[in-house]
Amino acid sequence: MTFEPRQPASRSLALTGSHPAQPTFSYSHVVLAGIRRQEHWSRTCFSKKTPSRALALKNIDYEIVAINLIKDGGQQFSKEFQALNPMKQVPALKIDGITLSQSLAIIEYLEETRPTPRLLPQDPKKRAQVRMISDLLASGIQPLQNLSVLNQVGKENQLTWAQRVIAPGFNALEQILQSTAGKYCMGDEVSMADLCLVPQVANAERYKVDLSPYPTISRINKSLLALEAFQVSHPSRQPDTPPELRA
Amino acid sequence: MTFEPRQPASRSLALTGSHPAQPTFSYSHVVLAGIRRQEHWSRTCFSKKTPSRALALKNIDYEIVAINLIKDGGQQFSKEFQALNPMKQVPALKIDGITLSQSLAIIEYLEETRPTPRLLPQDPKKRAQVRMISDLLASGIQPLQNLSVLNQVGKENQLTWAQRVIAPGFNALEQILQSTAGKYCMGDEVSMADLCLVPQVANAERYKVDLSPYPTISRINKSLLALEAFQVSHPSRQPDTPPELRA
Repeated sequence: MTFEPRQPASRSLALTGSHPAQPTFSYSHVVLAGIRRQEHWSRTCFSKKTPSRALALKNIDYEIVAINLIKDGGQQFSKEFQALNPMKQVPALKIDGITLSQSLAIIEYLEETRPTPRLLPQDPKKRAQVRMISDLLASGIQPLQNLSVLNQVGKENQLTWAQRVIAPGFNALEQILQSTAGKYCMGDEVSMADLCLVPQVANAERYKVDLSPYPTISRINKSLLALEAFQVSHPSRQPDTPPELRA
Repeated sequence: MTFEPRQPASRSLALTGSHPAQPTFSYSHVVLAGIRRQEHWSRTCFSKKTPSRALALKNIDYEIVAINLIKDGGQQFSKEFQALNPMKQVPALKIDGITLSQSLAIIEYLEETRPTPRLLPQDPKKRAQVRMISDLLASGIQPLQNLSVLNQVGKENQLTWAQRVIAPGFNALEQILQSTAGKYCMGDEVSMADLCLVPQVANAERYKVDLSPYPTISRINKSLLALEAFQVSHPSRQPDTPPELRA
């Protein structure tokens, strides 16, 4: 697969005046991405980058609007943001006159309306396996160690908690990948499953999960990070990346 | 939509002898469903019933194999179960020579290979909205209050925890449904989203979530529970339902 991902335009949500106007955008596709304080920039990996990387892989121009989830009591609750997304959720994608949230639902929509290059294989059984891996990551692991859960378990327990929820998921995943993987999660083509894998490995590294029992996961992750589409949307090249961490 | 769901055959995993043989089944489609102790029978709503209801709605014969997740240190780790599912996960569906886990991946596979009756609308935007609702339930709410998480937060905190994670998800869902729902989550046809809704409302009731702020959710749930396919797979008619709670 070859592609020429374009560098996305990006901006933060402007909150000025008491009469919010609908912002205008350079592109017709807008990713509404939640950010937190600068020190939390890398935590938003999964939710923010998965839709952006899908757009980059499909060579679709897009613009990012960064929504600060902490500032002003959470900009997602502001009138300005609600004008963009009445559901008050991030990430979201404004596209074709609708606003979609949930990363996998966004990718499936892109796949059905912009099928080339594919992010799901053609064979139904392989498609099912890609979805199984994606769901294992997006439902079986990611929600259990997202910021809202970690806040509730308390700072001193976060590392242990995160390790305890990531390890069983990675055990199942490693076993599945041994029968599905080639260069990537499903054979040698980048798929939706790969878009879910990379941010979860980044989180595992953040929480110091020992990755040595997961050689297949580690190898695939390394192959993916070498791809241009994953570099454009890498944490070190995000609009909210602190200057000292910029690539 | 009219259908004649068939009553599934069911059995518990037999663990006899030291040389496990591959069991034989009456049907070619087998749902591997995790159960816990009898007092936990209703907790497995989401994982166990979602694939079963999809099969019932599509009028596909199936057999349930109940795997006791507590007994013998967890029957999912036994050789007998690994012969059925090397991933050691429930729920899973053995179908067409492959074993799939993850409820939504299973439903998507059924939809692609057995398209009638539909569980996803034909229109791509409506399909996307059904997937968004399904993901919100399956990734955004369900994992945060499943048994493994509740065990970790401690018995005295379970009710508060469950209420705190269900309410924000239901707030977002209620808002989405106001623009998508007819009789069911998406218009007047039963969809994948409805399969995700019913077990989550059952869990909310279990954890005494006040449902009065969610009139749309409550109304749809009531309509769905009146359908035969949802009654066949109701908690009161499961193989592990204690006798005193049987319908």
